[in-house]
Amino acid sequence: MSQGTDSPPALHPQLVADCHVLGASAGHALLLHRNATLPWFLLVPPTTVTELFELPAPLRASLDAAADRLAVFVKQHFRCDKINVAAIGNIVPQLHLHVVGRRRDDACWPRPVWGHLTALADYPPATLDSVTRALRAAGCLDG
Amino acid sequence: MSQGTDSPPALHPQLVADCHVLGASAGHALLLHRNATLPWFLLVPPTTVTELFELPAPLRASLDAAADRLAVFVKQHFRCDKINVAAIGNIVPQLHLHVVGRRRDDACWPRPVWGHLTALADYPPATLDSVTRALRAAGCLDG
Repeated sequence: MSQGTDSPPALHPQLVADCHVLGASAGHALLLHRNATLPWFLLVPPTTVTELFELPAPLRASLDAAADRLAVFVKQHFRCDKINVAAIGNIVPQLHLHVVGRRRDDACWPRPVWGHLTALADYPPATLDSVTRALRAAGCLDG
Repeated sequence: MSQGTDSPPALHPQLVADCHVLGASAGHALLLHRNATLPWFLLVPPTTVTELFELPAPLRASLDAAADRLAVFVKQHFRCDKINVAAIGNIVPQLHLHVVGRRRDDACWPRPVWGHLTALADYPPATLDSVTRALRAAGCLDG
Protein backbone atom coordinates (compact mmCIF):
# COMPACT_ATOMS: atom_id res chain seq x y z
CA MET A 1 0.00 0.00 0.00
CA SER A 2 1.57 3.25 -1.05
CA GLN A 3 -0.95 5.91 -0.01
CA GLY A 4 0.70 8.54 2.15
CA THR A 5 4.06 6.85 2.58
CA ASP A 6 6.52 4.81 0.54
CA SER A 7 6.65 2.16 3.23
CA PRO A 8 4.68 1.83 6.44
CA PRO A 9 6.43 3.51 9.36
CA ALA A 10 7.40 1.34 12.32
CA LEU A 11 4.89 1.09 15.13
CA HIS A 12 5.37 3.65 17.90
CA PRO A 13 7.17 2.01 20.86
CA GLN A 14 4.30 2.89 23.20
CA LEU A 15 1.83 0.98 21.01
CA VAL A 16 4.14 -2.03 21.01
CA ALA A 17 4.53 -1.77 24.78
CA ASP A 18 0.77 -1.53 25.37
CA CYS A 19 -0.46 -4.04 22.81
CA HIS A 20 -0.11 -7.48 21.26
CA VAL A 21 0.65 -6.99 17.56
CA LEU A 22 -1.64 -9.55 15.90
CA GLY A 23 -0.83 -8.81 12.26
CA ALA A 24 -2.52 -6.69 9.63
CA SER A 25 -6.10 -6.07 8.54
CA ALA A 26 -6.31 -4.91 4.93
CA GLY A 27 -2.84 -3.46 5.38
CA HIS A 28 -3.52 -1.68 8.68
CA ALA A 29 -1.63 -3.03 11.68
CA LEU A 30 -4.07 -4.81 14.01
CA LEU A 31 -3.22 -4.60 17.68
CA LEU A 32 -4.92 -5.96 20.79
CA HIS A 33 -4.42 -4.02 24.01
CA ARG A 34 -2.61 -6.18 26.58
CA ASN A 35 -5.29 -5.38 29.16
CA ALA A 36 -7.70 -8.29 28.77
CA THR A 37 -10.31 -6.74 31.06
CA LEU A 38 -12.31 -5.93 27.94
CA PRO A 39 -11.77 -6.40 24.18
CA TRP A 40 -9.74 -3.35 23.12
CA PHE A 41 -8.34 -3.36 19.59
CA LEU A 42 -6.37 -0.75 17.65
CA LEU A 43 -5.91 -0.27 13.92
CA VAL A 44 -2.80 1.59 12.77
CA PRO A 45 -2.91 2.71 9.13
CA PRO A 46 0.33 2.78 7.11
CA THR A 47 0.79 6.53 7.08
CA THR A 48 2.76 9.35 8.62
CA VAL A 49 -0.20 11.75 8.89
CA THR A 50 -1.65 12.17 12.37
CA GLU A 51 -5.28 13.18 11.75
CA LEU A 52 -8.10 11.17 10.15
CA PHE A 53 -8.91 14.10 7.85
CA GLU A 54 -5.37 14.06 6.49
CA LEU A 55 -5.59 10.46 5.25
CA PRO A 56 -5.73 10.01 1.47
CA ALA A 57 -9.32 9.05 0.56
CA PRO A 58 -8.57 5.42 -0.42
CA LEU A 59 -6.68 4.81 2.82
CA ARG A 60 -9.46 6.45 4.86
CA ALA A 61 -12.07 4.26 3.16
CA SER A 62 -9.94 1.19 3.76
CA LEU A 63 -9.47 2.09 7.44
CA ASP A 64 -13.21 2.69 7.89
CA ALA A 65 -14.00 -0.65 6.26
CA ALA A 66 -11.43 -2.49 8.41
CA ALA A 67 -12.80 -0.77 11.53
CA ASP A 68 -16.37 -1.73 10.61
CA ARG A 69 -15.44 -5.39 10.04
CA LEU A 70 -13.57 -5.39 13.33
CA ALA A 71 -16.47 -3.74 15.17
CA VAL A 72 -18.91 -6.35 13.87
CA PHE A 73 -16.52 -9.11 14.93
CA VAL A 74 -15.95 -7.64 18.39
CA LYS A 75 -19.65 -7.10 19.01
CA GLN A 76 -20.50 -10.69 18.07
CA HIS A 77 -17.46 -12.58 19.37
CA PHE A 78 -17.38 -10.88 22.76
CA ARG A 79 -21.17 -10.37 22.96
CA CYS A 80 -20.81 -6.62 23.48
CA ASP A 81 -23.56 -4.08 24.01
CA LYS A 82 -21.71 -1.15 22.41
CA ILE A 83 -18.66 -0.44 20.31
CA ASN A 84 -16.56 2.62 21.10
CA VAL A 85 -14.51 3.95 18.17
CA ALA A 86 -12.01 6.76 18.65
CA ALA A 87 -8.99 8.48 17.16
CA ILE A 88 -7.40 10.42 20.01
CA GLY A 89 -3.60 10.48 19.74
CA ASN A 90 -2.84 13.07 22.40
CA ILE A 91 -0.07 10.90 23.82
CA VAL A 92 0.97 8.64 20.92
CA PRO A 93 1.11 10.80 17.77
CA GLN A 94 1.11 7.87 15.31
CA LEU A 95 -2.43 7.75 13.92
CA HIS A 96 -4.34 4.86 15.50
CA LEU A 97 -8.02 4.05 15.75
CA HIS A 98 -9.38 2.42 18.90
CA VAL A 99 -12.18 -0.15 18.46
CA VAL A 100 -13.33 -1.16 21.93
CA GLY A 101 -16.05 -3.63 22.82
CA ARG A 102 -18.11 -2.59 25.83
CA ARG A 103 -20.60 -4.48 27.99
CA ARG A 104 -22.94 -3.06 30.57
CA ASP A 105 -21.31 -5.40 33.10
CA ASP A 106 -17.68 -4.52 32.25
CA ALA A 107 -15.15 -3.02 34.63
CA CYS A 108 -15.67 0.65 33.80
CA TRP A 109 -19.09 0.91 32.13
CA PRO A 110 -20.37 3.44 31.20
CA ARG A 111 -17.16 5.45 31.29
CA PRO A 112 -14.83 5.34 28.27
CA VAL A 113 -11.72 3.23 28.78
CA TRP A 114 -9.19 6.03 28.37
CA GLY A 115 -7.96 6.99 31.80
CA HIS A 116 -10.80 5.10 33.51
CA LEU A 117 -9.94 1.42 33.09
CA THR A 118 -8.07 0.59 36.27
CA ALA A 119 -8.78 -3.15 36.38
CA LEU A 120 -6.01 -5.27 34.89
CA ALA A 121 -5.90 -8.73 33.35
CA ASP A 122 -3.57 -10.58 30.97
CA TYR A 123 -4.51 -12.69 27.96
CA PRO A 124 -3.50 -16.33 28.39
CA PRO A 125 -1.61 -17.48 25.25
CA ALA A 126 -4.43 -19.90 24.39
CA THR A 127 -6.94 -17.04 24.36
CA LEU A 128 -4.67 -14.95 22.14
CA ASP A 129 -4.46 -17.89 19.74
CA SER A 130 -8.22 -18.41 19.64
CA VAL A 131 -8.94 -14.71 19.17
CA THR A 132 -6.39 -14.58 16.35
CA ARG A 133 -7.98 -17.58 14.65
CA ALA A 134 -11.46 -16.09 15.01
CA LEU A 135 -10.27 -12.74 13.60
CA ARG A 136 -8.79 -14.52 10.58
CA ALA A 137 -11.99 -16.51 10.03
CA ALA A 138 -13.99 -13.26 10.19
CA GLY A 139 -11.81 -11.61 7.54
CA CYS A 140 -10.29 -9.18 10.04
CA LEU A 141 -6.74 -10.48 9.76
CA ASP A 142 -4.70 -10.77 6.57
CA GLY A 143 -2.87 -13.95 5.55
CA MET B 1 -32.26 12.75 3.82
CA SER B 2 -33.95 9.35 3.92
CA GLN B 3 -31.12 6.90 4.68
CA GLY B 4 -31.95 4.84 7.74
CA THR B 5 -35.11 6.67 8.74
CA ASP B 6 -38.11 8.33 7.13
CA SER B 7 -37.55 11.48 9.17
CA PRO B 8 -34.73 12.38 11.51
CA PRO B 9 -35.43 11.37 15.10
CA ALA B 10 -35.55 14.11 17.71
CA LEU B 11 -32.32 14.87 19.52
CA HIS B 12 -31.85 12.93 22.75
CA PRO B 13 -32.73 15.17 25.73
CA GLN B 14 -29.26 14.71 27.23
CA LEU B 15 -27.63 16.06 24.06
CA VAL B 16 -29.93 19.08 24.14
CA ALA B 17 -29.16 19.60 27.83
CA ASP B 18 -25.38 19.35 27.29
CA CYS B 19 -25.07 21.28 24.02
CA HIS B 20 -25.97 24.33 22.01
CA VAL B 21 -27.80 23.14 18.88
CA LEU B 22 -26.21 25.23 16.13
CA GLY B 23 -28.04 23.80 13.13
CA ALA B 24 -27.17 21.14 10.60
CA SER B 25 -24.07 20.20 8.63
CA ALA B 26 -24.92 18.33 5.42
CA GLY B 27 -28.06 17.11 7.18
CA HIS B 28 -26.33 16.02 10.41
CA ALA B 29 -27.28 18.00 13.50
CA LEU B 30 -24.31 20.13 14.57
CA LEU B 31 -24.00 20.69 18.31
CA LEU B 32 -21.49 22.60 20.41
CA HIS B 33 -20.93 21.36 23.95
CA ARG B 34 -21.94 24.05 26.46
CA ASN B 35 -18.59 23.70 28.23
CA ALA B 36 -16.51 26.39 26.55
CA THR B 37 -13.28 25.26 28.20
CA LEU B 38 -12.27 23.77 24.85
CA PRO B 39 -13.96 23.49 21.42
CA TRP B 40 -16.09 20.37 21.67
CA PHE B 41 -18.51 19.70 18.79
CA LEU B 42 -20.88 16.82 18.09
CA LEU B 43 -22.45 15.61 14.85
CA VAL B 44 -25.70 13.66 15.11
CA PRO B 45 -26.64 11.83 11.91
CA PRO B 46 -30.34 11.46 11.01
CA THR B 47 -30.67 7.79 11.87
CA THR B 48 -31.99 5.40 14.47
CA VAL B 49 -29.02 3.01 14.31
CA THR B 50 -26.56 3.25 17.20
CA GLU B 51 -23.27 2.03 15.72
CA LEU B 52 -21.13 3.59 12.97
CA PHE B 53 -20.95 0.23 11.18
CA GLU B 54 -24.74 0.11 10.97
CA LEU B 55 -25.02 3.37 9.02
CA PRO B 56 -26.04 3.04 5.37
CA ALA B 57 -22.92 3.69 3.25
CA PRO B 58 -24.05 7.07 1.83
CA LEU B 59 -24.90 8.38 5.30
CA ARG B 60 -21.58 7.09 6.69
CA ALA B 61 -19.67 8.81 3.89
CA SER B 62 -21.62 12.02 4.46
CA LEU B 63 -20.93 11.88 8.22
CA ASP B 64 -17.21 11.28 7.63
CA ALA B 65 -17.05 14.20 5.20
CA ALA B 66 -18.90 16.51 7.61
CA ALA B 67 -16.60 15.42 10.45
CA ASP B 68 -13.52 16.05 8.32
CA ARG B 69 -14.69 19.54 7.33
CA LEU B 70 -15.48 20.26 10.97
CA ALA B 71 -12.11 18.93 12.13
CA VAL B 72 -10.26 21.16 9.66
CA PHE B 73 -12.31 24.14 10.81
CA VAL B 74 -11.75 23.42 14.51
CA LYS B 75 -8.02 22.89 14.07
CA GLN B 76 -7.63 26.19 12.22
CA HIS B 77 -10.18 28.40 13.97
CA PHE B 78 -9.18 27.43 17.50
CA ARG B 79 -5.48 26.85 16.64
CA CYS B 80 -5.55 23.30 17.98
CA ASP B 81 -2.69 20.82 18.15
CA LYS B 82 -4.84 17.70 17.81
CA ILE B 83 -8.35 16.69 16.92
CA ASN B 84 -10.03 13.91 18.91
CA VAL B 85 -12.82 12.07 17.07
CA ALA B 86 -14.96 9.50 18.83
CA ALA B 87 -18.24 7.61 18.69
CA ILE B 88 -18.84 6.33 22.22
CA GLY B 89 -22.53 6.33 23.14
CA ASN B 90 -22.38 4.35 26.37
CA ILE B 91 -24.66 6.86 28.09
CA VAL B 92 -26.60 8.51 25.25
CA PRO B 93 -27.61 5.79 22.80
CA GLN B 94 -28.44 8.14 19.91
CA LEU B 95 -25.49 7.88 17.51
CA HIS B 96 -23.29 10.96 17.84
CA LEU B 97 -19.73 11.70 16.80
CA HIS B 98 -17.53 13.88 18.99
CA VAL B 99 -15.09 16.21 17.21
CA VAL B 100 -12.97 17.86 19.89
CA GLY B 101 -10.19 20.36 19.41
CA ARG B 102 -7.29 19.90 21.78
CA ARG B 103 -4.34 22.10 22.68
CA ARG B 104 -1.27 21.18 24.66
CA ASP B 105 -2.14 24.01 27.04
CA ASP B 106 -5.81 23.10 27.52
CA ALA B 107 -7.47 22.19 30.82
CA CYS B 108 -7.11 18.41 30.60
CA TRP B 109 -4.35 17.72 28.07
CA PRO B 110 -3.32 15.00 27.32
CA ARG B 111 -6.29 13.15 28.79
CA PRO B 112 -9.42 12.73 26.65
CA VAL B 113 -12.30 15.00 27.65
CA TRP B 114 -14.74 12.25 28.59
CA GLY B 115 -14.85 12.05 32.37
CA HIS B 116 -11.69 14.14 32.71
CA LEU B 117 -12.75 17.68 31.84
CA THR B 118 -13.59 19.21 35.21
CA ALA B 119 -12.99 22.86 34.33
CA LEU B 120 -16.16 24.71 33.36
CA ALA B 121 -16.85 27.80 31.27
CA ASP B 122 -19.85 29.22 29.39
CA TYR B 123 -19.93 30.65 25.87
CA PRO B 124 -20.87 34.33 25.85
CA PRO B 125 -23.65 34.89 23.27
CA ALA B 126 -21.30 36.99 21.11
CA THR B 127 -18.83 34.10 20.91
CA LEU B 128 -21.59 31.68 19.95
CA ASP B 129 -22.61 34.08 17.19
CA SER B 130 -19.08 34.45 15.85
CA VAL B 131 -18.41 30.70 15.93
CA THR B 132 -21.69 30.09 14.11
CA ARG B 133 -20.79 32.64 11.43
CA ALA B 134 -17.32 31.14 11.03
CA LEU B 135 -18.78 27.64 10.74
CA ARG B 136 -21.14 28.82 8.01
CA ALA B 137 -18.33 30.55 6.14
CA ALA B 138 -16.28 27.33 6.32
CA GLY B 139 -19.12 25.25 4.85
CA CYS B 140 -19.71 23.42 8.14
CA LEU B 141 -23.24 24.75 8.69
CA ASP B 142 -26.15 24.47 6.26
CA GLY B 143 -28.29 27.42 5.23
